[in-house]
Amino acid sequence: MTSEIRPGERLDDLQIGGLELIQDPEKFCFGVDAVFLSDFVRVRPGESVLDLGTGNGIIPVLLSAKTEARHITGLEIQADTAEMARRSVAHNHLEDRIDIVTGDIKEAAELFRPAFFDVITTNPPYMLADHGIRNPDDAKAVARHEILCTLDDILRESMRLMQDKSRFYMIHRPFRLTEIMIKMHEYKIEPKRIRFIHPYIDKEPTMVLIEGVRGAKPRVTVEPPLIIFDRHGTQEE
Amino acid sequence: MTSEIRPGERLDDLQIGGLELIQDPEKFCFGVDAVFLSDFVRVRPGESVLDLGTGNGIIPVLLSAKTEARHITGLEIQADTAEMARRSVAHNHLEDRIDIVTGDIKEAAELFRPAFFDVITTNPPYMLADHGIRNPDDAKAVARHEILCTLDDILRESMRLMQDKSRFYMIHRPFRLTEIMIKMHEYKIEPKRIRFIHPYIDKEPTMVLIEGVRGAKPRVTVEPPLIIFDRHGTQEE
Repeated sequence: MTSEIRPGERLDDLQIGGLELIQDPEKFCFGVDAVFLSDFVRVRPGESVLDLGTGNGIIPVLLSAKTEARHITGLEIQADTAEMARRSVAHNHLEDRIDIVTGDIKEAAELFRPAFFDVITTNPPYMLADHGIRNPDDAKAVARHEILCTLDDILRESMRLMQDKSRFYMIHRPFRLTEIMIKMHEYKIEPKRIRFIHPYIDKEPTMVLIEGVRGAKPRVTVEPPLIIFDRHGTQEE
Repeated sequence: MTSEIRPGERLDDLQIGGLELIQDPEKFCFGVDAVFLSDFVRVRPGESVLDLGTGNGIIPVLLSAKTEARHITGLEIQADTAEMARRSVAHNHLEDRIDIVTGDIKEAAELFRPAFFDVITTNPPYMLADHGIRNPDDAKAVARHEILCTLDDILRESMRLMQDKSRFYMIHRPFRLTEIMIKMHEYKIEPKRIRFIHPYIDKEPTMVLIEGVRGAKPRVTVEPPLIIFDRHGTQEE
């Protein structure tokens, strides 16, 4: 058996179900975003899930423990990152529930058709691509900036892979909220549930969680704010 | 001098600048919405303000004390309500700064052209008109339901009365947020600042304050949540 952890990589304890994740600090490492998103997602027993831009596979691995999803597919365009995610899936003996597919979000509908998913999740690049020059081979830049795919690409492909009432879950930056809501509505993934994540109660939110439902009526619920730290700087339970 | 307070009416102390407002409990009385909106509005010294659907004139009267607006116009379609608002203006000796105009929001651009306003405020009907039958002569129903004007009417007329960089302030219900943001963007009144009002920190917001700027770029700031009551049920300062 070949060693599953390569030089320069590390194995992180996910603090749930004994799961561990292989990460390469030179590439993009998962942050609290992925943890918040996996807590926000609602998956019913037996449902199928697709995670767009899965990176090192953090969302599929967390959802395998937090939900009774029948099957979870992670789509990742960067071949070496997808390969690392596959090793994490094997390390946790999750090959029966999780598939990591190497491929482009912009062609996701073609890749998976005629399949539909009950749930689509994504922790996409937050920043627009038109600010400065970046190296498209830089895994961190690709994860943070819309270099390889845009919000439009994600919503268009998601719409095509969702049936009526399929659910879409995304974490993003609040400053793009208008664009997000307009485009979700245009792609018939109606925003139904929104939650803002504030570092402190008296600070602006740094992240926003959104649930959209394919073909639903336009009525949205804004949830109570999620406050990360209390006033003493300690993390709330 | 005729008595300015009519039978059935009452005079309410606004707790600011010695101001008082004439209200008729049989009609719509102002609520915390108007107070929150007047706190959220930013008016620079010397600016002109238009309040659409001013009712008993609560917003213009509060803004006269809270800002250095040069002039504030309140537009109200219900003649008896507008007349009562005019008596409140006179009662507070604000005739030089506040005009109450009787007229229809749907024709506001025609009414005031070629004037432009630096700031437009509105505390519009929150509820859609298509739920049940209501009496269009009922002042309370008109204030709460989109019987005499819709969100589209308000935004269309506002756009026509705003110059580049003019500001628009509205309080509304969070469940209509998607529609509000889509339509503000369509009418080129770009959402720039949003604040949710929660009764308690762990409850969903019951109101949302929105600032839009005519012709601005689509980048929005979500502010810290406004929490009305602390956990002990007492109102926060």
